Amino acid sequence: MSDDVRVVPAGGSATQRLRTGQLVKVINTSGTQVIDCWAFTLADTREFMSMEHTRVETERVSPRPGDHLYTNRRRPILTLVEDTSPGVHDTTFAACDVYRYERLGARGYHRNCTDNLAAAMQAAGLDLVTTPCPLNLWENSQVQPDGRQVIAPPVSAPGDFVVLRAELDLILVFSACPQDMAPTNGVNGIPQDGHFAVLPASR
Amino acid sequence: MSDDVRVVPAGGSATQRLRTGQLVKVINTSGTQVIDCWAFTLADTREFMSMEHTRVETERVSPRPGDHLYTNRRRPILTLVEDTSPGVHDTTFAACDVYRYERLGARGYHRNCTDNLAAAMQAAGLDLVTTPCPLNLWENSQVQPDGRQVIAPPVSAPGDFVVLRAELDLILVFSACPQDMAPTNGVNGIPQDGHFAVLPASR
Repeated sequence: MSDDVRVVPAGGSATQRLRTGQLVKVINTSGTQVIDCWAFTLADTREFMSMEHTRVETERVSPRPGDHLYTNRRRPILTLVEDTSPGVHDTTFAACDVYRYERLGARGYHRNCTDNLAAAMQAAGLDLVTTPCPLNLWENSQVQPDGRQVIAPPVSAPGDFVVLRAELDLILVFSACPQDMAPTNGVNGIPQDGHFAVLPASR
Repeated sequence: MSDDVRVVPAGGSATQRLRTGQLVKVINTSGTQVIDCWAFTLADTREFMSMEHTRVETERVSPRPGDHLYTNRRRPILTLVEDTSPGVHDTTFAACDVYRYERLGARGYHRNCTDNLAAAMQAAGLDLVTTPCPLNLWENSQVQPDGRQVIAPPVSAPGDFVVLRAELDLILVFSACPQDMAPTNGVNGIPQDGHFAVLPASR
């Protein structure tokens, strides 16, 4: 991959600041990896991408190309510009956390997306007032006709990507979900690296 | 109604503290009124009922009788004990707020569930660190097979109720949603009073 491509290390996180109008490509390199994604406005991190506000505004449970993602103040913060995958992304499940892994029977500390977010924001020198529900790219927990939600392996293919456009000056936090005790990250459940790249302005 | 029944005034809010094991009956008196519902643990209001954590644990988009509702630390905080309605409740839509009504074309201030929550917690002398996504009792915005979510009038009947059991010492906040610019609260869209009652321990 080119020098412009950055890694979201398996089980870990990465951040990217974007100015309004910039585009970022988020790549499911293995095809099996869920990337939890958050966005906070740089002007005030108390304003952030909110799945529950987005669903009201788009009247859809998951975004499709052309849809905005909205903040908790109902402003567009990102636009889903392109999606090469079948579009199966989750907006309804909390990020994994120490409590989740305890309930699944983990012994000792298990890496988790909630702590990844907190550490990433601290490293960026930014306040984190709450843990918003993330945009879980490629997480396959679709709502069934009877209301059930079954965690199944992603249906994406290696190299599938989405392109997101910043609608505000923001910081993105990506976490390559460390889940290895449920089929979130594919049938073998071994977290993999994800990648992302800020696209040239001339695109 | 008996003296033990309290009102959630149309467009306004009410609070109720419960000890672990206590039962509360929440009544859709008109059959058309959505009641936004939040729960915070009294020991630490940073722990609260979380829809996104509940969905992961129950593997359902909406709770059914017998289901727990979970906190953001994945502890059961309430149990849905009984439901006389068809069970159409929303867990996916943010509480309405000033931004929502601005977008719908409201002129001037419009009452909203988010401000109702903030005022109720302040009146109760409790800290509110974030606005959790509420349990929207009787809100009919079910996820369709194609992922769409259409706001439709409630399908409940006058007098339908749910019974909730406290699994922790907590405060409940109810808001009789002031939405009158969308069909959330029935085809005529006029907010109505709701009611609730703490049930006798001998039940």
